[in-house]
Amino acid sequence: PAAASADAAQGAVGVPRCRRCLLAQLPSRGCRVSARRLPCRNIILNDPGKRNALSLSMLQALKEDLLHDVKSKELRVIVISAEGPVFCSGHDLKELSTQDDVKHHTQVFELCAEVMTLIQRLPVPVIAKVNGLATAAGCQLVASCDIAVASEKSRFATPGVNIGLFCSTPAVALGRSLPRKVALEMLFTGEPLSAHEALMHGLVSKVVPEDKLEEETMRISHKICESSKSVLALGKATFYRQMAQDLDTAYKITSQVMVDNLTLRDGQEGIEAFIQKRKPVWSHAQDKKK
Amino acid sequence: PAAASADAAQGAVGVPRCRRCLLAQLPSRGCRVSARRLPCRNIILNDPGKRNALSLSMLQALKEDLLHDVKSKELRVIVISAEGPVFCSGHDLKELSTQDDVKHHTQVFELCAEVMTLIQRLPVPVIAKVNGLATAAGCQLVASCDIAVASEKSRFATPGVNIGLFCSTPAVALGRSLPRKVALEMLFTGEPLSAHEALMHGLVSKVVPEDKLEEETMRISHKICESSKSVLALGKATFYRQMAQDLDTAYKITSQVMVDNLTLRDGQEGIEAFIQKRKPVWSHAQDKKK
Amino acid sequence: PAAASADAAQGAVGVPRCRRCLLAQLPSRGCRVSARRLPCRNIILNDPGKRNALSLSMLQALKEDLLHDVKSKELRVIVISAEGPVFCSGHDLKELSTQDDVKHHTQVFELCAEVMTLIQRLPVPVIAKVNGLATAAGCQLVASCDIAVASEKSRFATPGVNIGLFCSTPAVALGRSLPRKVALEMLFTGEPLSAHEALMHGLVSKVVPEDKLEEETMRISHKICESSKSVLALGKATFYRQMAQDLDTAYKITSQVMVDNLTLRDGQEGIEAFIQKRKPVWSHAQDKKK
Repeated sequence: PAAASADAAQGAVGVPRCRRCLLAQLPSRGCRVSARRLPCRNIILNDPGKRNALSLSMLQALKEDLLHDVKSKELRVIVISAEGPVFCSGHDLKELSTQDDVKHHTQVFELCAEVMTLIQRLPVPVIAKVNGLATAAGCQLVASCDIAVASEKSRFATPGVNIGLFCSTPAVALGRSLPRKVALEMLFTGEPLSAHEALMHGLVSKVVPEDKLEEETMRISHKICESSKSVLALGKATFYRQMAQDLDTAYKITSQVMVDNLTLRDGQEGIEAFIQKRKPVWSHAQDKKK
Repeated sequence: PAAASADAAQGAVGVPRCRRCLLAQLPSRGCRVSARRLPCRNIILNDPGKRNALSLSMLQALKEDLLHDVKSKELRVIVISAEGPVFCSGHDLKELSTQDDVKHHTQVFELCAEVMTLIQRLPVPVIAKVNGLATAAGCQLVASCDIAVASEKSRFATPGVNIGLFCSTPAVALGRSLPRKVALEMLFTGEPLSAHEALMHGLVSKVVPEDKLEEETMRISHKICESSKSVLALGKATFYRQMAQDLDTAYKITSQVMVDNLTLRDGQEGIEAFIQKRKPVWSHAQDKKK
Repeated sequence: PAAASADAAQGAVGVPRCRRCLLAQLPSRGCRVSARRLPCRNIILNDPGKRNALSLSMLQALKEDLLHDVKSKELRVIVISAEGPVFCSGHDLKELSTQDDVKHHTQVFELCAEVMTLIQRLPVPVIAKVNGLATAAGCQLVASCDIAVASEKSRFATPGVNIGLFCSTPAVALGRSLPRKVALEMLFTGEPLSAHEALMHGLVSKVVPEDKLEEETMRISHKICESSKSVLALGKATFYRQMAQDLDTAYKITSQVMVDNLTLRDGQEGIEAFIQKRKPVWSHAQDKKK
C-alpha cells in the first residue's frame, strides 16, 4: 500500500520496529486519481519474520511512534497496521523464558500495558487495520484501539493456554470488548474468532473484503480528518472519562463538557457555519473563542 | 396511526410539543378487528418541520408527558414515537449559538440529561418506536429507553463532530448500549448505523419491516399490560439499581427483592393463580398482602 | 448420550438431584472410534418431570456436585446439561407459595445466588450445554456459566412477570450478559430469545445443530483438558477479579499475574516446550518451579 512504500526508507531492514509516515496518500477511488494528503500517521508493524511479535524493542518503538509530536495539528488520526500475513502474534516468547529473570518479565508486561492504555489517552483516534491473524497481546492491541477495521480473512485468538501462559493481560482488553462468554471461550480454548464473529461480538467495528481494507480504512480516516482536532480530542478524553463513572456522574461531567465545547473556537465556528449554511473552517486549536 | 389521530386535538399546530393519549387502540390483527384499549401512553414528537428537535420547550413537554400521572393504574407503558421521516434530530442548534450565553446552554444540557435519566426512573417501561433517522440527542433518546423497536429503514448517528460539537452527552447513553469500538466509530465519524447493525450491536432490541412497526410495538405493549404494574415497577427499579453494583452486592439486593416481591399482593396472587391453574387477577397495587 | 448412561446408576429414580460422572467418553468422530477419557464432570439436571426445577434439594445437589473434589487433578472441566426437553425451568414455585414463610423463601434465593456465583469461583471452566428451553433461574444458570453451547432449538426466557414474580435475581446474570434493551425486553415481556438471538447478543458463546451439540461440547471440553489445570485456574480467577476493576488497576493486577504465571511449574514447562518445539507435559500442580 501507498503508506508502506512512502515509508519504506524509514525502517532499517531486519530491525524489529514500527514505521510511520505523517502524510499518507488517499487511494484513488474508481477512475479518479486523488493525490490529497491526509494528516494521518500510519504505524506499520514491520517484523513479519517474527510474526510482528511485540518484543521489548517493538513495544518501545510503538510507544515512540504513538507519542511522537502527537499534539501537532498535522496529526489527526493514527492507523496501526502490519506487514505480512500475521497482524501481530503477541509477546516475543524468547523474552519470557527461564533465562530471563522476574524483573525482565515485569518490564515486558508493564511496558505492554502502558502502550495499550496509552492508545486511549492519545488526543487522536487510533484505528487498527487488521489483515490476518491477531493473537494474544496482538489481539489485545486490536481490542485496545478506538476503532478496528478488519479484512474478512482476519482472525483473533488468545492461545496462551497452549503454552501454559494464560492471556491474563489480553483478557483485560477482551473482557471489555466482548461478551463474557465469548471472551472466556477464547481464553480457555485458545481457538480463534472469525472476522465476522469479531464484528458480531464487538471486538472490531467493521469488516470488509480484503481488497477493500485500504479503501475503507482511508475513508474512515478521511472522515475523521474533516473534523476539528481539538473537538475530537475533547470528545475522546471525555468518552473514556465518563465511561468509568455511574450514569448520573457521567451526565454531570458531559453536560459541562458540552458547554465547554461550545466555548471552543471550533465549537463556535461549527455552530455558526451550520446556521450560516457554509462549510466550517477549523483552527484545530484548543483555545477558547475570545 | 390510531394513536396520533386519537390525540390530534391535543397539540396546538406549530407549537413544538409532544402529544399523548392515555388509551390507544390495539390495531386489528389479520381479519379480526380488536377494539381493546391499552393503558399505554403514546408520546409523539410532533415538530417534523424542525426534524423533531429537542428544543428546550420540547424537552420540557417531554418531561411533563413522561411524568404526568405516572403512578396511575391506568398507565402501564409509555411509547415514544415521532411524526415525519426524522425520529429526532437532537438539540435545536439555534439554542446553542453564540447569541445565547453559557447559562442558557447549561440549562439545555442539564434538562436533556434529566429527561434521559428520568426515563429509567419511571415506574413503567418506556419503549422507543423508531421509524426514521435518530441523530445526536435523538439517538441518545433511543439509547435511553428501556426497549427500542425500529423499522428496517431507521438509522442512528451522532454527527456532532461535523458541526464542531462532539456528542459527549449522547456518548453516555451510547457507550452503555453499544460495544466501545462501534460507539467510537459513530462518534468520531458521524456516520450512521443501519437498523440491523443497531440490533446486532444492542442499541435497539427489535427490528421489523416498516409496515409491521405499529403492530410489533403494540404487541410488546400489550404483553407488558398483561402484567402487574407494581411488579414491573419493582423489577424495573431493581434492575437499574443492581446493575450499578458488583455481583455479590447485586445478588444481595435482588435476593431480598425477590422475597419482598412475593409478599406483594400481586406476587401472592400470581403464585396462587399458577398453582391453582387459573389466570391471575392483578390489583396493580403496591401494598403487601395482609 | 454416553455421559448420562455411564452415570445412570448414581441418581435414585424420582429424586430430584443432579448426576455426575468423572470420566465421560469422547464421542467417536466420523468413522474413528475414540475411547479417550476426559477429566470432565458431567452434571446432568435429572428431574425432567418437574422440568428440572431448581428446588432447594436440586440446588443443594448442584452445589455439592460443583464442589465435590474440585481441586483434584482428575477434574478439569465441568459440563452442566439436562435430561428432557426443558433445560431448566427455574425455581420450584411450590416452594415459593404462601404456605411457606419469608424465612424459607430467603433460603431459596440465597442458596440460588450462592450456586450461581460459585460457578465463577470454581478453579475449572464450567460449560452449560443447553438443548431446550431455559427459563427464569434456569436462564440465569446458563448466563452464569463461563461458556454456553446451545442447540439451535434452544430458547431462553425470563417469564416471571406472568406469575407476578419479576425475575430480579436472573436479571443480575442477564444484565451482565446481554445488551440492556434485550435483557429488559425479555424481563418486561417474558418472551423468549431464540438460540441465534442468544448468540448474537452474547448470552451463549456457540450455537450448533442439535445433532452436533454433544460433539461440539466435547470438542471444547477436550481442548480445555489439553491445558494445565493450574494455569486455567489462575487465569479464570484473575479474569473475574480484574473485570471488577478500572482499566489501570486491572492492568496492574494482570501484569503481576503474568509474571507469577511464568514462575509456575507449568508456566515454565510451556515456554520451554515451545522454544524446544516439543509438546508440553503438564504437572497441573500449583507449585512454583524451584
